[in-house]
Amino acid sequence: MRHVPQPAREDLDLPAVLHALGDPVRFELVRRMASGGEVACSPDDLDVPRSTLSNHWRILREAGLTVTRPEGKARCMSLRRDDLDARFPGLVDTLFGRAGEPV
Amino acid sequence: MRHVPQPAREDLDLPAVLHALGDPVRFELVRRMASGGEVACSPDDLDVPRSTLSNHWRILREAGLTVTRPEGKARCMSLRRDDLDARFPGLVDTLFGRAGEPV
Repeated sequence: MRHVPQPAREDLDLPAVLHALGDPVRFELVRRMASGGEVACSPDDLDVPRSTLSNHWRILREAGLTVTRPEGKARCMSLRRDDLDARFPGLVDTLFGRAGEPV
Repeated sequence: MRHVPQPAREDLDLPAVLHALGDPVRFELVRRMASGGEVACSPDDLDVPRSTLSNHWRILREAGLTVTRPEGKARCMSLRRDDLDARFPGLVDTLFGRAGEPV
């Protein structure tokens, strides 16, 4: 697996995090992670080209929102919730609720 | 004054609002409005070209974050806080705090 860079907790930047969240597809991916934990890198039910999804995941990772776990040839993504909660208290809960539903 | 379109409260879209906030200059403009109320369309202390600022204000307005008030030849911008609080409870407070400071 290639090295997958991601920013350290202390380097998370709020405008960059908001930019990453400011797209309907990325917002939905984060909502799913906030709600259900891990998400496959290519969910079957999202009508988005794989290359586009890959770009969305890159933006989320580079903004510090996600951590990547290899699973065979695929990857599973999850939210860096502890880091996000530590840096921006209440943000994930405000956006997605404790149950992961949008406000 | 030209007609300045802005979305109705019920049409505010969370990913679009987050996209508007997801830029350092726009984030700072919103922080100032959240903190101090009205902001001149061309603040003296921001080292940003006027045309760039104008574009930032347009993005904020079209996402439903701001309302525009003409003041002579200039414009003053303020946050649509009631609309934002109604549609996305806690978001402005979470991002900027009650005193308008970033978290």
